[in-house]
Amino acid sequence: MKTIAVLTSGGDAPGMNPCVRAVVRTALFHGDKAIGIHNGYDGLLDGLFNPMEARDVGGILQRGGTVLGTARSEEFYTEEGQARAVQMLQEKSVDQLVVIGGDGSMRGARALAARGIQVVGVPASIDNDIWGTNMSLGVDTALNTIKDAIDKLRDTASSHRRAFLIETMGRNCGYLAVMAGVIGGAEVVLIPEAEVTMAEVADSVEKAYARGKTHSIVVVAEGASIETQELAAALDNLDVGFATRVTILGHIQRGGRPSAFDRLMATRMGVKAVDALREGKTDVMMALQGRHIDTIQLEEVVSRQRAANLEYFEMCRMLAN
Amino acid sequence: MKTIAVLTSGGDAPGMNPCVRAVVRTALFHGDKAIGIHNGYDGLLDGLFNPMEARDVGGILQRGGTVLGTARSEEFYTEEGQARAVQMLQEKSVDQLVVIGGDGSMRGARALAARGIQVVGVPASIDNDIWGTNMSLGVDTALNTIKDAIDKLRDTASSHRRAFLIETMGRNCGYLAVMAGVIGGAEVVLIPEAEVTMAEVADSVEKAYARGKTHSIVVVAEGASIETQELAAALDNLDVGFATRVTILGHIQRGGRPSAFDRLMATRMGVKAVDALREGKTDVMMALQGRHIDTIQLEEVVSRQRAANLEYFEMCRMLAN
Amino acid sequence: MKTIAVLTSGGDAPGMNPCVRAVVRTALFHGDKAIGIHNGYDGLLDGLFNPMEARDVGGILQRGGTVLGTARSEEFYTEEGQARAVQMLQEKSVDQLVVIGGDGSMRGARALAARGIQVVGVPASIDNDIWGTNMSLGVDTALNTIKDAIDKLRDTASSHRRAFLIETMGRNCGYLAVMAGVIGGAEVVLIPEAEVTMAEVADSVEKAYARGKTHSIVVVAEGASIETQELAAALDNLDVGFATRVTILGHIQRGGRPSAFDRLMATRMGVKAVDALREGKTDVMMALQGRHIDTIQLEEVVSRQRAANLEYFEMCRMLAN
Amino acid sequence: MKTIAVLTSGGDAPGMNPCVRAVVRTALFHGDKAIGIHNGYDGLLDGLFNPMEARDVGGILQRGGTVLGTARSEEFYTEEGQARAVQMLQEKSVDQLVVIGGDGSMRGARALAARGIQVVGVPASIDNDIWGTNMSLGVDTALNTIKDAIDKLRDTASSHRRAFLIETMGRNCGYLAVMAGVIGGAEVVLIPEAEVTMAEVADSVEKAYARGKTHSIVVVAEGASIETQELAAALDNLDVGFATRVTILGHIQRGGRPSAFDRLMATRMGVKAVDALREGKTDVMMALQGRHIDTIQLEEVVSRQRAANLEYFEMCRMLAN
Repeated sequence: MKTIAVLTSGGDAPGMNPCVRAVVRTALFHGDKAIGIHNGYDGLLDGLFNPMEARDVGGILQRGGTVLGTARSEEFYTEEGQARAVQMLQEKSVDQLVVIGGDGSMRGARALAARGIQVVGVPASIDNDIWGTNMSLGVDTALNTIKDAIDKLRDTASSHRRAFLIETMGRNCGYLAVMAGVIGGAEVVLIPEAEVTMAEVADSVEKAYARGKTHSIVVVAEGASIETQELAAALDNLDVGFATRVTILGHIQRGGRPSAFDRLMATRMGVKAVDALREGKTDVMMALQGRHIDTIQLEEVVSRQRAANLEYFEMCRMLAN
Repeated sequence: MKTIAVLTSGGDAPGMNPCVRAVVRTALFHGDKAIGIHNGYDGLLDGLFNPMEARDVGGILQRGGTVLGTARSEEFYTEEGQARAVQMLQEKSVDQLVVIGGDGSMRGARALAARGIQVVGVPASIDNDIWGTNMSLGVDTALNTIKDAIDKLRDTASSHRRAFLIETMGRNCGYLAVMAGVIGGAEVVLIPEAEVTMAEVADSVEKAYARGKTHSIVVVAEGASIETQELAAALDNLDVGFATRVTILGHIQRGGRPSAFDRLMATRMGVKAVDALREGKTDVMMALQGRHIDTIQLEEVVSRQRAANLEYFEMCRMLAN
Repeated sequence: MKTIAVLTSGGDAPGMNPCVRAVVRTALFHGDKAIGIHNGYDGLLDGLFNPMEARDVGGILQRGGTVLGTARSEEFYTEEGQARAVQMLQEKSVDQLVVIGGDGSMRGARALAARGIQVVGVPASIDNDIWGTNMSLGVDTALNTIKDAIDKLRDTASSHRRAFLIETMGRNCGYLAVMAGVIGGAEVVLIPEAEVTMAEVADSVEKAYARGKTHSIVVVAEGASIETQELAAALDNLDVGFATRVTILGHIQRGGRPSAFDRLMATRMGVKAVDALREGKTDVMMALQGRHIDTIQLEEVVSRQRAANLEYFEMCRMLAN
Repeated sequence: MKTIAVLTSGGDAPGMNPCVRAVVRTALFHGDKAIGIHNGYDGLLDGLFNPMEARDVGGILQRGGTVLGTARSEEFYTEEGQARAVQMLQEKSVDQLVVIGGDGSMRGARALAARGIQVVGVPASIDNDIWGTNMSLGVDTALNTIKDAIDKLRDTASSHRRAFLIETMGRNCGYLAVMAGVIGGAEVVLIPEAEVTMAEVADSVEKAYARGKTHSIVVVAEGASIETQELAAALDNLDVGFATRVTILGHIQRGGRPSAFDRLMATRMGVKAVDALREGKTDVMMALQGRHIDTIQLEEVVSRQRAANLEYFEMCRMLAN
């Protein structure tokens, strides 16, 4: 009988709860002990360890956020912090650890693995910026939230001729914005990975107007080189035909009950993370590769950052015509 | 056999479509002719008149926006414009007119009534700023959209300690913001009708932090004296404990399929608007008064503007504790 | 300083949680003590009393169901049970009680009031079958759930010519079914309060087919004299043009996050229930009357049962044309 | 310059509209002509051909169902019908055809390819029963609809101890039911591909009760050997602790605005179907294989039927504990 602990770390993402549920119940199914660590690496250092029974993860499958809480620890990213973390895990007799979080959290998992802790990561980040997996937990739910917002903008397009600017998350990675562009029928998408000038945006919107479109949609990732409000002001000045209106989604993109896709992937990754630990694997992250859940070395995960696929960038332009 | 025309005008609102459907089918039920005028008063001037059969309003009950289109006409608000409008209605043999729109549109309806057109208004405005009716079409749907957004923010509150600033519509009327505050459990609400200082907001948020709340929600009407991004910057500077995050909903508040409430009220008002015309009424607007749909003189409607109910303003503070 | 207890009883309804939150926080705001009783009258008898602080009702505003649990007690509806209930309330030093529930629960509240307990009821029942209030908690959310379901059926109507039979709750009261009929554009509605024959339904559906409608929607309250599956079989036998498909919504009508309307009414009723207790009122229920929240004697509430408004029944037929 | 026609056939599925939009706009982008055929193979035989411009597919991206309509043709599945279909396509100068539909429709596409028409299929079927592709259009949206329904049942679970039986689509293929079981936390799933006895179901539900679960969820595919209502009656007779409640989702599973996943896959498949035609491919279907969209021979597609993955069947049991 082993003791398996699980924590959630970094920005929260829909899907963390079903993953925690799967880890706990799979561990218990195999006769192991399960422990939930609260508040991420901070809680690990502070000893916020709770034994988890099957009923403790009842009713969380459909909930957004994370019942374990999360935090962005500073102390843990020091040598002393990590040494203390290892000591704490040993004190609490934790044999194996599942870390659910973003790329910063995977870096932390790597550090623990390097210090001899048996650890498996699960990728969770609505930005889909984690290298090595096709999708991270929370991405599909976030995309559906953005889709719903754009659909509402499109509903209202019948009335006045408007250009809607919609700002999505994505400080370094334009994945959400590009996909939202395809899904939402955007004229143009602005992302960190591809330079688009103010003149090009104005030109696209103006052409949409000239083609007789009732509206124009522009998606702006928060990390794009042109800022949303600035772009709105510029378009209004240039008089592109449409009046400009701004929506900034902000943290509502992190919320919502996990989608079917996220819930299924979270469950599969949680089950297979425990399986991987039972097979003696460590220093790896679960990854969606095609339709399979595999493992990938954490070293590879943290060595690169994922970018948006520019193929969709072009598809978006072609189809908005 | 009479000819009843219907148009939608001003900012679009969920509920306009079910109302158009009810007007058309009620007219046809009574053996009258129904005509849809496209693009509001602009289309009236341009002669965009279409005969409507029962099938022409099939499948629109559940759709947001307005299938008739809408516009903000300038010409119609001149003497010449209105004279031409009357002429056009006579040319097209329209006996009676239903105008679905906001307070500007009701002003237009009044002008037509003054020139001898038999006209009945139906209030539609997501801001709920029309005097004389408890609710206007679109308000309930917009409130549910804001509610869904705040719920998503609350989902994510488990993770980091954050203050969420959420900007709603409401240039002159804080109705949506105040109600959203009660419904969403906001700490503070900023509206045009009540002065709140930056220091008071900071104090409320800080106290929420001190009480151990995991998050704080502040709702800001777009017409409030403090601007949202400015408030966010100020809160971050003052270091109130929470990190500040901004959501600006914008035009998604106008979209979405009409809610049950809006669909029912739209249907009732559409049916009763035709009934009122059949009874020879004119120069009136349909109004929700308690649970009844009554008529109110357009003169009274356009003489005042509705404001937010400050009772809810206080309720919000009390319950956020 | 008084002690105010709150319980939820009978079938659960969206809106119970925001009401519990409002009761607890209003009581605390006035310096009183608040107690939550779990599992309705059963828990009252079993002594399941929990002191509630402001944080204990944090995060429940947006949740469906009831965090206090509910049950249908048998013992409480005996003389001995009620005597024991009074004893238990005295033992726990409870001065005042808020009961959130349906008409059975109001009967229970009356019995406690008759035994000297100061008690105020809040109506909660998705069927809207409680006498004396325009709306009960949960009705608006349930209607929106039904609306969403019918909208999905209408989406798919473009393909094959189908008659959709949709069964809603409503054993004795056809309110939900009739309103769903208006909101969803149904051809016919079957409710307990109005006899409709199989031949009449078939005739309506057949005429819809003849008029060229792509689909036909029939709403059946569970308490209607003709059973849904039986009706489907009959329509298929009669060959009315459309192929028949059945949806039985069941308990999903009880679920879902409370709508804006329910959340606002729940909050207002919770606040005002505590106000009423503070003013010394007892043996009353909070009631929505027009736009106001008033009190009504429990004696009157339990003496009658509310029925569906047949005006809407006719409106539905007229508009489905 | 070629002429590319597109039709939708069989049961409608969310995602058909974005796929039609992608086909039309990609064809136009390459300078080809696009034609929409209404009402599937029936409309093909009846000559319901409409030239499509970019604006004709505006505003359909977010709509459920199919704007082209669909039908289940009998005539087309005869030799004469197919000969006439070929003749009609030649008469209308259609060079290439995209068929969006289920496995019956793919069989039809094969027949046309055998007669020399250049045709590419796109899989659309909410049952996910089409061989050769990981996912068909509509599956993800349908799963999210089922998920939302189960979530609502789980919301209400706090009150009474209930066993919820929920019937999903799936006459021959239990995919939706099994996935819904994992996603919704079901105790047991009944599907056509795996025999489960009444006694086993009763045993699972009873054990859930004994473990102290507040509720139990059982998902039944419509093609399972035990019928839903029959199972409900049996469970109530056996007195398994929980009271049984039935939900039959029916055709609401076909409705709803397409999800982000379906909209993206529909768009990619539509674009690549035109690409495939331009490359001279025929007698193939677009298929999701891992993360890539590839083509697969129609011969292989129609030679087998896809079944549910029993791995998830076991996962469901393990995690419901």
